Amino acid sequence: VKISQIGEDKLIQGVKEKMNFNLGEGVVGIGDDCAVVPLGENKLMLFSTDSLVEGCHFIKEKISPRDLGYKAVMVNVSDVAAMGGRGRYALMSIAMPKGTDASWFSEYMNGVKEACEEVGVGLIGGDTTSSKGGIFINFSIVGEVLRGNVKYRKDAREGDVICVTDTLGDSLAGYEMMMSGKNKGSLVEKHCCPKARFREGEWLGGHSSVRGMMDISDGLFQDLGRMMKASGYGAEVDIDKIPVSREFIEFAREHDWPVKERAVISGEEYGLLLTVNSVEYQSLSDEFEKIFSRPLYAIGIVKGGRGVRFIKNGKVVEIEFEGYLHFKD
Amino acid sequence: VKISQIGEDKLIQGVKEKMNFNLGEGVVGIGDDCAVVPLGENKLMLFSTDSLVEGCHFIKEKISPRDLGYKAVMVNVSDVAAMGGRGRYALMSIAMPKGTDASWFSEYMNGVKEACEEVGVGLIGGDTTSSKGGIFINFSIVGEVLRGNVKYRKDAREGDVICVTDTLGDSLAGYEMMMSGKNKGSLVEKHCCPKARFREGEWLGGHSSVRGMMDISDGLFQDLGRMMKASGYGAEVDIDKIPVSREFIEFAREHDWPVKERAVISGEEYGLLLTVNSVEYQSLSDEFEKIFSRPLYAIGIVKGGRGVRFIKNGKVVEIEFEGYLHFKD
Repeated sequence: VKISQIGEDKLIQGVKEKMNFNLGEGVVGIGDDCAVVPLGENKLMLFSTDSLVEGCHFIKEKISPRDLGYKAVMVNVSDVAAMGGRGRYALMSIAMPKGTDASWFSEYMNGVKEACEEVGVGLIGGDTTSSKGGIFINFSIVGEVLRGNVKYRKDAREGDVICVTDTLGDSLAGYEMMMSGKNKGSLVEKHCCPKARFREGEWLGGHSSVRGMMDISDGLFQDLGRMMKASGYGAEVDIDKIPVSREFIEFAREHDWPVKERAVISGEEYGLLLTVNSVEYQSLSDEFEKIFSRPLYAIGIVKGGRGVRFIKNGKVVEIEFEGYLHFKD
Repeated sequence: VKISQIGEDKLIQGVKEKMNFNLGEGVVGIGDDCAVVPLGENKLMLFSTDSLVEGCHFIKEKISPRDLGYKAVMVNVSDVAAMGGRGRYALMSIAMPKGTDASWFSEYMNGVKEACEEVGVGLIGGDTTSSKGGIFINFSIVGEVLRGNVKYRKDAREGDVICVTDTLGDSLAGYEMMMSGKNKGSLVEKHCCPKARFREGEWLGGHSSVRGMMDISDGLFQDLGRMMKASGYGAEVDIDKIPVSREFIEFAREHDWPVKERAVISGEEYGLLLTVNSVEYQSLSDEFEKIFSRPLYAIGIVKGGRGVRFIKNGKVVEIEFEGYLHFKD
């Protein structure tokens, strides 16, 4: 049996079951965007780790080293934001072939620096090694959150309003553009230099009306499914309410893409996905818009049952799933 | 300019200078075995990250998956031990080709589990991804240490006795045996399943007579040089006092190796290197031997000046340096 026949989610579940020891009181381990460890009476520490592998997560010739460094930090910070917390420290491992240009590495580090400055994270350690099989980047991030502010993906409840903080689809369109040799424009930028929603995540963490929360790294379709599975509910999403950018609509039309159906499978978006107590949704949304100058988009409702249904004019829309699955053949 | 022309130490120094911000009060960043972050009034948190790259750190066909998993944990725990602390949590990233056997991964995880159980560390998170260029493993470890017990490599002082906790050389001999197809015996085991000296490290951390401390990952020759550079002193090592195992001596004789000269360049040893206030060395050493049932080997003295000199019968011995350097051509 090859690991490709098992799939990422089952692989992780197996690891979680095998390693269920030495966790200590109050520790939440594998299964959410971050691990959670108690820190004194009022705080929790957040830990997450994410890799970018050449040939899988990026093509060296297609992304600038500066963008790659920036992105490597942001995807990790996004995990902390998804728990309602703030990133504090990062550790960086990078393996590179010996023949890598020093100027490439220097530009890469400029991107790391820019992202760390933007989000207030300090690089406290790392490991640099040689590689015989391309570039491998791994960041581990350490964050913190007030005990009452932490958000988990498991806490969505029936009747909650399902929300996203950002338009969807740009990253997938940007990826296609990048692969066809275009390296300018807002879509490519969204894919290559994603912005972690660290201010939004921390702010949302401070509101008890926010229940389940996670970031959108594998596409709304897949990630909302994970949130509903963790929470024990189902979701009904009004596909007309999926927010998309003007640039994405144009790109989709040019390429004959079904707009919303593609938007919901676009991964590496790094906007936040959350559910909000329906009674408080309007006031939260008003406040969010005042502070962040864009809407908190309501796209659906948490329902009983299981799974995610996308609805258009009262009818179920089948999503042709092409989201990226690690270890899938 | 290629990174191989810059070298690992200079590369890291460059990163350290560029990323000298957002560190916060009391934080010690890049440059020692672990980063140090204050935790309340009495404790410090320790952070370290280490990678094992296929083709560079290991050959998949030469090491069992169980040993590889065990070693990946131990080399990280060793970094925490080297600071006088105790490992608490680990994060694991692994990138594998899609065709990797599920049974290989399962055996690998058994090794991870065994090591974590042995050292009391809990795996709280990770990232599993596919790879197009071989297996890449990264662990980040979180440890803690009492504020008064932390040890740095920079704290060696003139007149200190230089000590090691273990014999040297086995790992290099074990590597040679493994590469020539032998996979049994104490030398191979020392290379493939190194034991982090976590009990010794924590115990030594509790003694103020211990000054500089680090683990031996790149060989005594190179690592003692780093400790002396960080401390601003030089070292004189009596090469006859370098402890070696009976098995290593036999192997060295069979292969016509100069015994001690090879022992001091053997990397991936993961014993501890430390300097001890000379006045207190004897009592510390007696106590160490009583508790750990082996000597705390005194091998030299910290001197004024710079660099490391190996001495035999009053004469300087030149060491033919073949230690493994990342990014060296």
